[in-house]
Amino acid sequence: MTKVVTVKRKALAANDEQADALRRRFADGGTLVVNLISSPGSGKTTLLERTVARLKDRHRLAVIEGDVATERDADRIRALGVPAHQVLTGGACHLDARQIATALEAARLEPADLLFVENVGNLICPTTYDLGEDFKVALLSVTEGDDKPFKYPAIFSRAEVTVITKSDLLPHVPFDLAAVQEQLAALAPSGCRIVTSATTGEGLDEWVALLEERLRAKRSAA
Amino acid sequence: MTKVVTVKRKALAANDEQADALRRRFADGGTLVVNLISSPGSGKTTLLERTVARLKDRHRLAVIEGDVATERDADRIRALGVPAHQVLTGGACHLDARQIATALEAARLEPADLLFVENVGNLICPTTYDLGEDFKVALLSVTEGDDKPFKYPAIFSRAEVTVITKSDLLPHVPFDLAAVQEQLAALAPSGCRIVTSATTGEGLDEWVALLEERLRAKRSAA
Repeated sequence: MTKVVTVKRKALAANDEQADALRRRFADGGTLVVNLISSPGSGKTTLLERTVARLKDRHRLAVIEGDVATERDADRIRALGVPAHQVLTGGACHLDARQIATALEAARLEPADLLFVENVGNLICPTTYDLGEDFKVALLSVTEGDDKPFKYPAIFSRAEVTVITKSDLLPHVPFDLAAVQEQLAALAPSGCRIVTSATTGEGLDEWVALLEERLRAKRSAA
Repeated sequence: MTKVVTVKRKALAANDEQADALRRRFADGGTLVVNLISSPGSGKTTLLERTVARLKDRHRLAVIEGDVATERDADRIRALGVPAHQVLTGGACHLDARQIATALEAARLEPADLLFVENVGNLICPTTYDLGEDFKVALLSVTEGDDKPFKYPAIFSRAEVTVITKSDLLPHVPFDLAAVQEQLAALAPSGCRIVTSATTGEGLDEWVALLEERLRAKRSAA
């Protein structure tokens, strides 16, 4: 198993190098890049649908979708008139930087103000693969249970933003929101947490304002 | 990346060998072994709680819990008076056969009639790691969305049983049960599908009857 670890470490180092190149490219283009990570079914694509609907008239948007199989998610974004490229990973449980570079060559996604990368539905594997993003966003739906941050500490400590989704279902599920907020505060003390519902619209203004603020900050720092 | 693939293939071959040894051990002991796989928060531990409550007076049960972090799940099972061993994988996104063998040495789980292995919350990585089980069970909660079988075809085609969970939430979420049944029928034509709710008890009799039928079949074939 040591050989597996060594080979994996080398693959991660190669990925980091490619991610650094992407980060320079995105800095040159003034593109804010957000890497969305969660379990399958936490609502990443739905959050993106709501986000692009609110932002597409004010900014140039683009989306890269990562999935093991099917073109469904990219189709959902394209239906809103925003360019989206689907990366199919086959069996792989995460996107890597090389796939992002290839997607940028294959599809006309640039120039863009905001590039959203929806990673493969997985709370573990995508955590260690830098995609050249400005920051990671972890999503956690209230239906997944309130023990998840401590059960998957790596992603919830590395994500600068955690979006709690499906808050409209809180009356129907056992989910102690205060307990989750405490776990997140312990794992990511400087992180930002937003409670949202794509159904009621709760938290979406706050989420979109955060994105625009981060975009402004990146542009003024350039 | 080819080197990663080669090393991974060798690791899988070594795992298969260890799994075969486990399978012989379980055959000798007359133990039916079930490998539960799903996204984080689909309700694996809750299904196990309901299952052991119904079966523990009739059979010798044991549970192996796989998680990246925390002992929470094993604690929940032990609270019901059933022996449970927690395997912490660190960063790894699946259990492997070696960890099952180590758990059997470390904890007094045998002799057992039924051994449940709750894999790490992940719809992708656990799929290819044989743990010496009799069959895999995939769980899918209705809150995860009705596109999941086709998006994660490997696990839903390899699982002999798919348990749809949280059916009590169907009135509150967009989930086309018929569409999911069609996807599952296409991926696993001979598979078995059970719709359940740990809250209302729907489907739990059917699930428990399936387990006991499989145990009887294994014993009579021995």
